[in-house]
Amino acid sequence: MSKLRVASFSISIDGFGAGPQQSLEHPLGVGGMELHQWVFPTQSFQQMHGGGGSGETGIDNDFVVRGFNNIGAWILGRNMFGPVRGPWPDGSWKGWWGDNPPYHVPVFVLTHHPREPLVMQGGTTFHFVTEGIHAALERARAAANGKDVRLGGGVATIRECLRAGLIDEMHLAISPVLLGSGEALFSGIDLVSLGFRCSEHASTPLATHVLLQRES
Amino acid sequence: MSKLRVASFSISIDGFGAGPQQSLEHPLGVGGMELHQWVFPTQSFQQMHGGGGSGETGIDNDFVVRGFNNIGAWILGRNMFGPVRGPWPDGSWKGWWGDNPPYHVPVFVLTHHPREPLVMQGGTTFHFVTEGIHAALERARAAANGKDVRLGGGVATIRECLRAGLIDEMHLAISPVLLGSGEALFSGIDLVSLGFRCSEHASTPLATHVLLQRES
Repeated sequence: MSKLRVASFSISIDGFGAGPQQSLEHPLGVGGMELHQWVFPTQSFQQMHGGGGSGETGIDNDFVVRGFNNIGAWILGRNMFGPVRGPWPDGSWKGWWGDNPPYHVPVFVLTHHPREPLVMQGGTTFHFVTEGIHAALERARAAANGKDVRLGGGVATIRECLRAGLIDEMHLAISPVLLGSGEALFSGIDLVSLGFRCSEHASTPLATHVLLQRES
Repeated sequence: MSKLRVASFSISIDGFGAGPQQSLEHPLGVGGMELHQWVFPTQSFQQMHGGGGSGETGIDNDFVVRGFNNIGAWILGRNMFGPVRGPWPDGSWKGWWGDNPPYHVPVFVLTHHPREPLVMQGGTTFHFVTEGIHAALERARAAANGKDVRLGGGVATIRECLRAGLIDEMHLAISPVLLGSGEALFSGIDLVSLGFRCSEHASTPLATHVLLQRES
């Protein structure tokens, strides 16, 4: 059965998945980049972003790698794709990731504003879905062809999917930082009532990894 | 300078310091005992509760020990002292800890209902403070005589003290469990605006320890 999975999603000690005041300069909000310090040194990240064979192996890297295993399609909230708000002024914004994004599968971007699909290098095609999360998941599942669908975020999109009972598995990385304010991932959401339990955990100097799985 | 410190305070992945539906059978709320699994095997806990010299040493134990270092007095919320609500019916409830509680210093219990001080074995005396947290802290500081004051909890008392800017340091242990609901420790409290940062962190198979310190 194809799962909807969140992976390598970083939160602060105080439960924020992004900092306040998101902008082009601070796409993750003020302080939000601090959440991801565990990712950057990993071999997997270095390889995806042009660092060649360098980078660290071990628990942090293992979790990054697992997040890409058996993924046939992605879903992204509009803010994850870019800072553009309102109708697309033109086709110039093509995501944060350059000509060859690290997805290499179809990516379904939630938006209120229609746009033609955007074919990138390396197998990534961005599809823009205006009919909401259920339609996006249906299209992503079809595209994934039996593999899992990865939900990239952001916080608002994950919360919407949690409340709708759509998410099967979440790997979170708790980073040893405080953000103080921003987007709280779980506030007001009862993960136990939704059927989740912590099925696995492992720590490194840079993060505490927890795997939350929904019992069906 | 005498500090007000929280130590060895356990929270869940989803940020709860106690589970829902607290009662005599579930003093930490349903599921709340799961938060403390990192404490029970430690040498320090075993020694305090009659286990003699057995028990594990290492990071978990080190944090338990540090929490008792240089403590001259404690403050406890009413619910930490016991399940009795309303006026004290008599003097029969003497805390959860038997005749020789693990404090061995003066302990100031917040309550709305006056009660005579209760002298226990081993140096612990429970004082009942009806004038609120500031009065309790003043009396505890005087009793501590230059040493630090430890705030035992519970969640509501810690939140009140955080909002009043009284807490200098918090050692939290994040346990790899979900509670889903209960008492959220930080909801609506901006730790960064209050001046806290994470100054130290360490993980074990049972907990992720973080030390939050307020910069003055």
